[in-house]
Amino acid sequence: MNLPGAKPIAAPGWTAKPKQSISLIDCDVHQVPHNREDLIPYLPRAYQERVADYGFPLLNSGYLNVAGRAARTDLAEKFNQEDHHGGNQNWAYQRLRDYHLDVWNIEFALLTGETLYTASVIPDPDFSSALCSAANDWSRENWTSLDKRLKLALATSCSDPDLAVREVNRLGEHTDVVAIVLPTGAQIPYGNRFYHPIWQACQEHGLVVCIHPGAEGTGMVGAPTGVGFPTYYMENRAARASMAMAHCTSLICEGVFERFPELKFAVLEVDQYWVPGFLWKMDADWKSLREQTPWVKKLPSEYFRQHIRVGSQPFAEPERRVDLMGLLEEMHAEETLLYCSDWPHFDWDDPVTTLPTLSPELHQRIFVDNARELFGLGNDS
Amino acid sequence: MNLPGAKPIAAPGWTAKPKQSISLIDCDVHQVPHNREDLIPYLPRAYQERVADYGFPLLNSGYLNVAGRAARTDLAEKFNQEDHHGGNQNWAYQRLRDYHLDVWNIEFALLTGETLYTASVIPDPDFSSALCSAANDWSRENWTSLDKRLKLALATSCSDPDLAVREVNRLGEHTDVVAIVLPTGAQIPYGNRFYHPIWQACQEHGLVVCIHPGAEGTGMVGAPTGVGFPTYYMENRAARASMAMAHCTSLICEGVFERFPELKFAVLEVDQYWVPGFLWKMDADWKSLREQTPWVKKLPSEYFRQHIRVGSQPFAEPERRVDLMGLLEEMHAEETLLYCSDWPHFDWDDPVTTLPTLSPELHQRIFVDNARELFGLGNDS
Repeated sequence: MNLPGAKPIAAPGWTAKPKQSISLIDCDVHQVPHNREDLIPYLPRAYQERVADYGFPLLNSGYLNVAGRAARTDLAEKFNQEDHHGGNQNWAYQRLRDYHLDVWNIEFALLTGETLYTASVIPDPDFSSALCSAANDWSRENWTSLDKRLKLALATSCSDPDLAVREVNRLGEHTDVVAIVLPTGAQIPYGNRFYHPIWQACQEHGLVVCIHPGAEGTGMVGAPTGVGFPTYYMENRAARASMAMAHCTSLICEGVFERFPELKFAVLEVDQYWVPGFLWKMDADWKSLREQTPWVKKLPSEYFRQHIRVGSQPFAEPERRVDLMGLLEEMHAEETLLYCSDWPHFDWDDPVTTLPTLSPELHQRIFVDNARELFGLGNDS
Repeated sequence: MNLPGAKPIAAPGWTAKPKQSISLIDCDVHQVPHNREDLIPYLPRAYQERVADYGFPLLNSGYLNVAGRAARTDLAEKFNQEDHHGGNQNWAYQRLRDYHLDVWNIEFALLTGETLYTASVIPDPDFSSALCSAANDWSRENWTSLDKRLKLALATSCSDPDLAVREVNRLGEHTDVVAIVLPTGAQIPYGNRFYHPIWQACQEHGLVVCIHPGAEGTGMVGAPTGVGFPTYYMENRAARASMAMAHCTSLICEGVFERFPELKFAVLEVDQYWVPGFLWKMDADWKSLREQTPWVKKLPSEYFRQHIRVGSQPFAEPERRVDLMGLLEEMHAEETLLYCSDWPHFDWDDPVTTLPTLSPELHQRIFVDNARELFGLGNDS
């Protein structure tokens, strides 16, 4: 097989032959529709007509991203050829299977969205909820039902928590559903009591809540930084870690993990460098200010380590190995870090060149066991 | 002398007798007015009458802070006794002199504001500019003119850049003026071209631009996080680092340091933990995305190390010394870190218990030389 793009290379460290040594779990894979119009039949009739008349209401922030739908250069051209696949609706899945799952021996891959998971930010909560339901039904029919390795994070509109709970209850018990996914872009941080009914439902069904970049600064969501709208994509991208921090601070300070002791969050595609200092800062401030939030009974770092996981992609590795190993140690990567590829995006991370020099034990935690425990994978699913 | 509150203690490391060994520079000291009404005579007549009728227009975010005007517990009661000082307008200065400058052998202290530096966020730019001018005249007459160790960061309203430039030109050449100070709270990030005339004026007068927490989420400024308004003070406080990052990203991506190659910024009271990872992230993204901002000609970390300095307070020190030393090394503390006390606030950091175990060379950089070079202090001033 002739693989364009990233190939397994002889990286220093554990192995250049992942397939023979270990089965991986990839916690961030995007199920890309060939054409978004493929999803229209999954909408109620009224919304089918609305989309026919107005198009999908998905919003663009106006920031550049990367050309070719931000796909890998070896995939972008193929993804964008409208008539390339002879009506084969499963072409994108087959490409994922042949070029990713099989090559790298991926045991499970979490499907985190095809952009409709950002529908929360449009003004009409019924419409946004219907868009998410359509995305979920399409994803199950065209992806998870084709391959038992694929698991789904439900697109969930949280602008009406009652509708979100209804969607979680509708699909939350299916074995191919292990999580929900929300965009980092939000009107209010995710610890706010507005969202608690959704967290209650997720806890009941054992679903992880994933937060993934999307919708920042669009629709009803405010500026993507605490100091207004930046100018360039690189700035918007740099703001993701800050948005993740604001959500995590909120979850901890609002006592979400005291109310929902089984609930877990996974923040994906938001870097990792912020975790150690964020924990130091939160712990220090809790010691002097906890009288203001007495329901926060433990050190913030304890809640974080117990309830919050962080994706590995993108990983801005420092030049010096000592700094990288320090970061992994300080963030308790053996508990908190999840391997993510971000397939099929331009800045995706393959599982051989990502963090290549780990000990076998730490590699097993980051690339397999942390995700297995988080999502309950591989036991009976 | 009987000192209440924090005392020089025998911390492990360099010395418990700072006065005999080294003269320090403190880059964050607040010139607290006994009563804010003391500043009224420094306003034009029309605004004097306005303040008499309406009070000062300073805005409160609604978040708690810490009781007693957030002052040290040993100072809070005295600061708040309206009639305690028998009409002695200089009481607050004398307290700073006796309890801080003399005790710790402070050679220079930068006065960073008494809250009117946040006036940018009120709707009326003429009024906010007049409030800043009054604060500056009051600060020079009641603080810097009494003690050559005191240097002033000019309160500057940037809601009308022309007025800001006028204020910088009015006072920028006085030897007691070495900087301007802006609140972290802002409608748009500080790299935006809207502000460039102010940066031009600061470069011409050799003034450092200090960014200091204030005004987040108040007045015309939006939510203090990229995901809306958090609920509790601890969250608002945790957002400061993110706001600093957004401003720094903006300064670098907008090419401010290519346009103004002599300009320096100091971000104060916004933690430090974010610096190493922020630089790794920015450098990595620049390598893949710099075609979108071709005027950014060097690695972002190079601009940061050359043009941006970071205050030491509050310093959420990790438990393990190896992590602390790693952070200082990765952030290039020998170039970038400035000792700050944040006098007289509850979470102030005295210069003996702060970072007590540094090498003499690194201590000299952080507590003296970085600030001396940044502000041009001690040569002829």
